[in-house]
Amino acid sequence: MRLRHKPWAKDFIAEHSQYVIANPEQYKGKWHEVFGNDHPIHIEVGTGKGQFLAGMSVQNPGINYIGIELFDSVIVAALQKIVDQKLPNMKLLNVNAQNLTDYFDDNEIERVYLNFSDPWPKSRHSKRRLTYKSFLEIYEKILVKGGEVHFKTDNQGLFEFSLISFSEYGMQLKFVSLDLHNSDFEGNIMTEYEEKFSEKGQRIYRVEAKFMNEE
Amino acid sequence: MRLRHKPWAKDFIAEHSQYVIANPEQYKGKWHEVFGNDHPIHIEVGTGKGQFLAGMSVQNPGINYIGIELFDSVIVAALQKIVDQKLPNMKLLNVNAQNLTDYFDDNEIERVYLNFSDPWPKSRHSKRRLTYKSFLEIYEKILVKGGEVHFKTDNQGLFEFSLISFSEYGMQLKFVSLDLHNSDFEGNIMTEYEEKFSEKGQRIYRVEAKFMNEE
Repeated sequence: MRLRHKPWAKDFIAEHSQYVIANPEQYKGKWHEVFGNDHPIHIEVGTGKGQFLAGMSVQNPGINYIGIELFDSVIVAALQKIVDQKLPNMKLLNVNAQNLTDYFDDNEIERVYLNFSDPWPKSRHSKRRLTYKSFLEIYEKILVKGGEVHFKTDNQGLFEFSLISFSEYGMQLKFVSLDLHNSDFEGNIMTEYEEKFSEKGQRIYRVEAKFMNEE
Repeated sequence: MRLRHKPWAKDFIAEHSQYVIANPEQYKGKWHEVFGNDHPIHIEVGTGKGQFLAGMSVQNPGINYIGIELFDSVIVAALQKIVDQKLPNMKLLNVNAQNLTDYFDDNEIERVYLNFSDPWPKSRHSKRRLTYKSFLEIYEKILVKGGEVHFKTDNQGLFEFSLISFSEYGMQLKFVSLDLHNSDFEGNIMTEYEEKFSEKGQRIYRVEAKFMNEE
């Protein structure tokens, strides 16, 4: 994603601290209080401009969504959607995914979404891919037992890598589509990126993988 | 595959009982004697006209290959290749894959190949797919501990089904290619079917899955 420097971004984020939560460490283990209900919490790691998560929030009012996005020049577009659409069940964290265990307690999250994550195509960068083993360890810790990672991408190499990474971690594949937009999968919410690339006839890959850590 | 009735097939097979082994039950646990050496044994389930297995036999003289093929009108083409090329490390069985445990002892086989298996696209026929759970049970029994199934197909639905079937069985994916002919995989031997369909630009999918039953 192209990042434009937006000097006003920091101010806009600070003005809306009820949506882009400042100091999220203080809510570790207490996210239900932030939302004011006991609904399950799903997070998206790498929320970008937020079209997927805003769409999911509208589609599923009984689920709380938290978008994780490092770049403030991008997260402002997601914040704008919450403000415009007055979404009560969507929050944002302007933080690094590597530190998720600082913000979420064990078993606090029900599902992790990864959408069109950076493929980091060079082998020497494989540890930066959001489906690399060290990230799966983080997701497993904050997810409920038997929690799931739902992942989609148009990048063939990243998808191949991710299938093997999930499998070698001991996760079970529950759903695989090698051409999502020509499958009978229902209720797909597209990201901005997905809309653009699927129009060009690019295949979209999707997998659901489950941690096998239930008693 | 189109099957032509070949009235001479049965005679041709019977004349070459050193290659298409008659009464294979009697060699259960003794296949090394048939080959006259202790090399590992790999089998292909659904050998068809035998181009893959004949090519593998030439490429890997230190491995013994057994092709399993139910249809005598097809297996004759594989037999012809053994006769023409005088392949010492390739045999054929004209039997049904459902009965493999009648012919092979526990841990007798080192690897199973499945190539362009019948996709049986209707849900009610899913049990006939060679990657269905009941077939994985058969392969697990005759394979060594930690044995592998190597599978390729051009059929997207069968590949998606198979990834999930392997995973739900507890097998680990070791290699996945979603476009084999445009990957850096080396030493691929094409089947007749693969040659024909990849020329039309059809993608070939390939996976290696390992049984996790080692002590």
